Amino acid sequence: MSAAKPPRTVEEHRAVVAALLPPTGVEVVPLAEARGRVLAEPVTAAISLPPFDNSAMDGYAVRAADVAGATADSPVTLPVAADIPAGRTDVPPLEPGTAARIMTGAPVPAGADAIVQVELTDGGTERVAISAAPAAGTHVRTVGEDVFEGTAVLDAGTVLGAAQIGVAAAVGRATLPVRRRPHVLVLSTGSELVAPGEPLAPGQIYESNGAMLAAAVRDAGGTADQLRFVPDDVEQFRKVLAERIVAGVDLVVTSGGVSAGAYEVVKDALTGHGVEFVKVGMQPGGPQGAGVVEFGEVSCPVVTLPGNPVSSQVSFEVFVRPVLRRAMGHPYPDRPVVTARSREALRSPAGRTQFRRGTLDARDGTVGEVGSPASHMLAALARADCLFVVPAEATGVHPGDELEVWLLDSAL
Amino acid sequence: MSAAKPPRTVEEHRAVVAALLPPTGVEVVPLAEARGRVLAEPVTAAISLPPFDNSAMDGYAVRAADVAGATADSPVTLPVAADIPAGRTDVPPLEPGTAARIMTGAPVPAGADAIVQVELTDGGTERVAISAAPAAGTHVRTVGEDVFEGTAVLDAGTVLGAAQIGVAAAVGRATLPVRRRPHVLVLSTGSELVAPGEPLAPGQIYESNGAMLAAAVRDAGGTADQLRFVPDDVEQFRKVLAERIVAGVDLVVTSGGVSAGAYEVVKDALTGHGVEFVKVGMQPGGPQGAGVVEFGEVSCPVVTLPGNPVSSQVSFEVFVRPVLRRAMGHPYPDRPVVTARSREALRSPAGRTQFRRGTLDARDGTVGEVGSPASHMLAALARADCLFVVPAEATGVHPGDELEVWLLDSAL
Repeated sequence: MSAAKPPRTVEEHRAVVAALLPPTGVEVVPLAEARGRVLAEPVTAAISLPPFDNSAMDGYAVRAADVAGATADSPVTLPVAADIPAGRTDVPPLEPGTAARIMTGAPVPAGADAIVQVELTDGGTERVAISAAPAAGTHVRTVGEDVFEGTAVLDAGTVLGAAQIGVAAAVGRATLPVRRRPHVLVLSTGSELVAPGEPLAPGQIYESNGAMLAAAVRDAGGTADQLRFVPDDVEQFRKVLAERIVAGVDLVVTSGGVSAGAYEVVKDALTGHGVEFVKVGMQPGGPQGAGVVEFGEVSCPVVTLPGNPVSSQVSFEVFVRPVLRRAMGHPYPDRPVVTARSREALRSPAGRTQFRRGTLDARDGTVGEVGSPASHMLAALARADCLFVVPAEATGVHPGDELEVWLLDSAL
Repeated sequence: MSAAKPPRTVEEHRAVVAALLPPTGVEVVPLAEARGRVLAEPVTAAISLPPFDNSAMDGYAVRAADVAGATADSPVTLPVAADIPAGRTDVPPLEPGTAARIMTGAPVPAGADAIVQVELTDGGTERVAISAAPAAGTHVRTVGEDVFEGTAVLDAGTVLGAAQIGVAAAVGRATLPVRRRPHVLVLSTGSELVAPGEPLAPGQIYESNGAMLAAAVRDAGGTADQLRFVPDDVEQFRKVLAERIVAGVDLVVTSGGVSAGAYEVVKDALTGHGVEFVKVGMQPGGPQGAGVVEFGEVSCPVVTLPGNPVSSQVSFEVFVRPVLRRAMGHPYPDRPVVTARSREALRSPAGRTQFRRGTLDARDGTVGEVGSPASHMLAALARADCLFVVPAEATGVHPGDELEVWLLDSAL
C-alpha cells in the first residue's frame, strides 16, 4: 500500500465546504414570511416614530399656562372645544383658554403643550374641571422620540423576529429584502436501507439519515427535498443526481457510500466528477467529500457525508449547518459555544478531533458524555443537548478539564 | 368615581390566561413535518438498534480462534468463503477455518466473532492474509447496543429536532403522534391604523401589531391568521369576530381598544360577552382582558392586549406565549430565565412589575436598558435581546442589583 496522505484537519475541511456556497440571492418577501430570515439591506425609516406629537393618555390637551394654578381644592374649568379620538385627521388648533378631549395615540392639537389625564379631571364633555397643573410636555409623545425619519431602524444582517417585523411595519414597510433560504437536496445511499414503516428483512436497517438531515437543513433555515435513497448502483445514482440538480438547488448533501469499502457508490460515482474524497482527522465522521459536481451544462455543490447516522448528523453540524446559515446571511452561523468542565475521565485517539455527545449542566458549568463515542449510538445523540470537543492532540480528558461545548438545542 | 379595585398581579393574570387554553389535540404527522413539534406519546422501539450484529469496519469476519497467532511477520491465511456487502439478507454461517469479506454495517455471519479491518490484511478476495489477532468481539456492533427492542427511545414531551426524528426513523417509525399547533386569530383595532405600504394622513399611524403578533405566534410554535384591522365600530368588530371564530381556532388575540378611553371598541364589544377587562399591575401593559367569548353556539378563548406596540408585544411574551407553548406540549413553555446585575440606576413605579427592554452581556453577567420604559419605544424593543424584570414592590434599581432576565432570541 502507498503511504497514506495525512488526514485533513476539521478546520481545513470546514474551509473547503464553506467555499462551495456563496450567499444566496436577495428576495423581497411580505412581512408575514419574513420571520427567521436575515435582512439583506438596512431598513431606513421613511417617517418618524411617532409620526406626530400624540397623547400618551386618555384625557385633555391643554396649554399648561392655562391651568398653572389648578389643584384638587381649586380646579380650573375650561370649555371643551374639540373631541380628538385616535385617528382623527382634521384636528383644529387649540385656542387659548380651551381644552380638547383627547384619547391615547391621538394627535396633540397645535397650541397644546400638555395632557391632563382623565383621572385628574371631572371628565366633562362640554366643560372640564381640571384639578392638577401639568408641566409643559406632560404625557406628550413627541414626533421622532422613538425614531427619526431617515435613520436606520434595522441593520443589514438583522435576524427578523416579531419585534423587528413590528418596527418595519411601524415605519410603513409591507415587504422586506431578505436572503433566499438555501435549497438542499438530501440523498441517502445504501442497499441495506428500508423506508421506515416497511417490513425489515434480516440484514436490513431503517433509513434514518434522510429524515434526520432534512430536519437539520430546515433547523438551519434552509429548505429540503428528501430524495428516496438509491441503491448502491453508480449509474442509477448518477442518473438520479443529474435529473434532480436543477436551477434553485443550492447544495446536494449525500450520506453513505464514501468510506474505504469495496462498494462505495457515492465515491465511485463522483470521483473524477468534481468531488474530492478525503479523510478528515475527526471522530465520528472521518470519511468526507466535497466539491462541485458537473453533469454536462449543470453543476451543483455537493457535500458527501458518511453513512453512520451519528457520523452523518455530527458531520452536518460541523461542516454544513454553518455554511447554510452563512449563505442566508446569519450574523452568527455557528452554534453557541461555551466552555465547561468534564464530569469524567475520557480516553481519546490522538490525531482526531472528537465531537462527543453530551449533556451540559449550565448551573455548575460541567459537561458529561451521553452514550459512547461510537458512531452508531443514535439514541444517545437524541438525548444529548450538546456536542463537546476533544482536541485532536489530546489522548484523554481528566475530570475538571475545560472543554469546548456546542449547544445543540438553540432552535427549540 | 367609585374606589378602583386593586390591580391584578402579573401572576394572577397569567393564571387566568393559562386556564383558557387546554392542551391541543394529538395528530399523527409524517417525519418530514415533525420538526419543532412535541411528542404526545413515547416512542417505543419495535426493533433493537442495531437490529443485528454488524461490522463496524470494512474488512473480514473471522473466528478469533482461527487467527489467534497472526502477526505482521507471520500472517494467517484463510480462504474467503463469502462476500457480505451491507444489505445482504442471505448471509451464510461462517465455517471454521474460513473468513468472509464484509463491509461496514453488513451482518456478521453466524459463527464469526470478530472483524479484522481491511488495513490489517492483504485485501484478498479468494484467500486473505491476516496480520493481526483480534480479540473476540473486535469491531462487532452487537444487536441492541444502542437500543433494546421494547424500550422507549423518546419520551412523551420530547421536542422533536433532527436527532430525535432520526432515532424515530431508525426504529421504523414513518409518522409520529404530536400535539397540534394552536391556531390563533390576530386582530388589531384602531381607526388611526393604516396598512404598511399605504399613504399616511396626518394623525394616522402604520398598523404594526398584526404582523408583529402573528410572527410572535409562529415563533411560539402556533399558526396565525392575521385579520385586517377593523375600525373602532362595535357592531363591525362583533361581526368580524363571529364570522371568523370557527372550528380550529384555538385563540383570538386582539390588540388595542381596552384602556380607559371613551372609544374602546374591544372593551365595548366584549364586556358582558364572556371577557373580563382588568388592570394588571405591570408596565407596559396595564389594561388587559381575557375570557371565553360566545356568539350563539360558537365560543372561543380571547386575550385582549393593549394597543401600544411595546405593550402589546410584551403582554404577548408575558401572558400568551407560554400558554401557546404549553398547549402544544412544550416541557419548558417559558423563556429561558437568567439572573444578571444591573449596569445602571433605574427608577420604577411602586405597585407595578416592569418588563423593561434590555441587552444582556452574558460574559460579565450584566444587563442594561435599551431605550426607555415608555410603551411606544418600538425601535428599542427591536434592538433588545432580553426583557428584565423590576419587581412590583421596587421603586428603583441600583447598579449591581440582581435582576431576573428573560432571554428573547432563543428562537433565532
